[in-house]
Amino acid sequence: MSEIRQDQATKRWVVMATERAKRPRDLAPKEAPEVQEEEHSPDCPFCPGNESRTPPEVLAYRDEGGEPNTPGWQARVVPNAFPALRPEGEVEIRQPHWFTSVTGVGAHEVLVESPKHNADLATMSIEDVSVAVRAVAERFEALQQDRRLRYIACFRNHGRPAGSSLTHPHTQIIATPIAPTNVREEIEEARRHYDDRLHCVYCEVMERERECNERIVLETDSYFVFEPFASRWPFETWIVPKRHSAIFTLGGAADIESLAHALHTTLKALHRGVGDPAYNLVLHEAPLRDSCEDYYHWHIEILPRLATAAGFELGTGIWINTVMPEQSAEYLREFVGD
Amino acid sequence: MSEIRQDQATKRWVVMATERAKRPRDLAPKEAPEVQEEEHSPDCPFCPGNESRTPPEVLAYRDEGGEPNTPGWQARVVPNAFPALRPEGEVEIRQPHWFTSVTGVGAHEVLVESPKHNADLATMSIEDVSVAVRAVAERFEALQQDRRLRYIACFRNHGRPAGSSLTHPHTQIIATPIAPTNVREEIEEARRHYDDRLHCVYCEVMERERECNERIVLETDSYFVFEPFASRWPFETWIVPKRHSAIFTLGGAADIESLAHALHTTLKALHRGVGDPAYNLVLHEAPLRDSCEDYYHWHIEILPRLATAAGFELGTGIWINTVMPEQSAEYLREFVGD
Repeated sequence: MSEIRQDQATKRWVVMATERAKRPRDLAPKEAPEVQEEEHSPDCPFCPGNESRTPPEVLAYRDEGGEPNTPGWQARVVPNAFPALRPEGEVEIRQPHWFTSVTGVGAHEVLVESPKHNADLATMSIEDVSVAVRAVAERFEALQQDRRLRYIACFRNHGRPAGSSLTHPHTQIIATPIAPTNVREEIEEARRHYDDRLHCVYCEVMERERECNERIVLETDSYFVFEPFASRWPFETWIVPKRHSAIFTLGGAADIESLAHALHTTLKALHRGVGDPAYNLVLHEAPLRDSCEDYYHWHIEILPRLATAAGFELGTGIWINTVMPEQSAEYLREFVGD
Repeated sequence: MSEIRQDQATKRWVVMATERAKRPRDLAPKEAPEVQEEEHSPDCPFCPGNESRTPPEVLAYRDEGGEPNTPGWQARVVPNAFPALRPEGEVEIRQPHWFTSVTGVGAHEVLVESPKHNADLATMSIEDVSVAVRAVAERFEALQQDRRLRYIACFRNHGRPAGSSLTHPHTQIIATPIAPTNVREEIEEARRHYDDRLHCVYCEVMERERECNERIVLETDSYFVFEPFASRWPFETWIVPKRHSAIFTLGGAADIESLAHALHTTLKALHRGVGDPAYNLVLHEAPLRDSCEDYYHWHIEILPRLATAAGFELGTGIWINTVMPEQSAEYLREFVGD
């Protein structure tokens, strides 16, 4: 008999469809698709030498020095050339014929994570991953100052099935003047849990996962990596900081390095074990200037696109998963470490 | 400047990304992909003659008579061969190590809409569409009697990008012992609107849409078809009954025919105008035995998969749409009618 699991933090339901069950190993492509990309692609707007093909950079690291918008950078953040939102004008609410809209004030930035066209977070060095993490943290600090913004969404689309149209490794940041409905609902559930139990539900999830010890992928000094009890996708993996905080903030170099380590190890395990699957990586944190410090908990969700969300998922918000997270976590642990 | 629109019924936000704007006509493939399927496919489990390759039917229409599970049917409902949920056993809540799950009691059925392998709701006759609508209504009536069930999800995945793996035209029904989170949230918002304004928000949306008259695709005696103000996807189209009802019920032959007409006209317009796009069609209605009759309103949402939901959408629940519904509705109206 199938089992319908509920995520304790969000109250989301997932059908674990045992009738359709797949073993984790069956999801790994027999051979990872080896599209041999070159280290430099003359047509890629993110490759060194093509800096003029993006809007002017808002951040770049150049250890050897050099002019802005020229080669020599290790990581580079630029506004998206076709931005969903722009950091111009005022946030105004409008009500055309009773309907509600808000002016599209915000930010849409792209972090180019490496000068190498064929690099990937899963295979690059931990030092290079740290550079990318540092850039994200620095952009968060800058964007948090803008009082027009309510939320900063940071995400990574890897592979075409995950919605990525460019090969060159990159992460996107979209800052919005409104609080996302998903985040609002997560916070509402977390608040209820806190009001009932007097502690953070994400902190409790980590504690309970440690007790039953079936779905942990990795635990470091600072991060807890596991496959959630109610995983929506095969190999859904969460990276949760052990230190409680509602807002994504990294204190300094040590903080940046420990997140880079957890992220690198997790992505490397997925890359090796599941043959470089397409995935969406999403950072979840509290809206800006929102006092939910005691009960919300920032974290990263990695959602491998190993199944297609169809009518049932889009209509109901209930997901169907064919791989038990206990099995995928056990499988993934084989690929953790060097 | 972009515009961030809010759906009045669900409070969902959608970025209308004018920087990336596409004209509706640009989304139509130059030539509809003409995969010439045969009327009968010997390998298809849904084709006549292969009745033994599905579980025994739970409903079939045979105008000329004939034995169950033999050819001669116009439409046929069978349990899914790999069901997500089964109508066996009791609904029990379990708490393994603090986590929550429910036994997978429910139903997972497939309506085979036509004996013809290459038929499609958009191109078949209105009489044949009526047969399919009648079958759905009849299965709803039967499943509503089962007190273990809390919700009946009815959906249609058309085309591979929409998650369909079988060509033969079919609709699925999954009945669950739990109320879906999406539906819960919709109902919660509808209740707030009712408490504040003393009328159903969906009824008001129809009235306001009629007033501004920019996004209507079709209005018949019984149904209102429009592209919502905050459409998530290009050509997102809703079919809403003008008679207020929280639960999906069709009174008799006339009711069935008017829904078949609205559905057929809408799907035909999408097929002609947008070149047979992949889509998910989802029926939204109240959970069973849930007294939200005054403020919730059943309806059908058609979600063409003309864009990929990626990290931003999955993480935040905010969507980015590149086609203004005013434009797509105007375009679609050209294809309404014979």
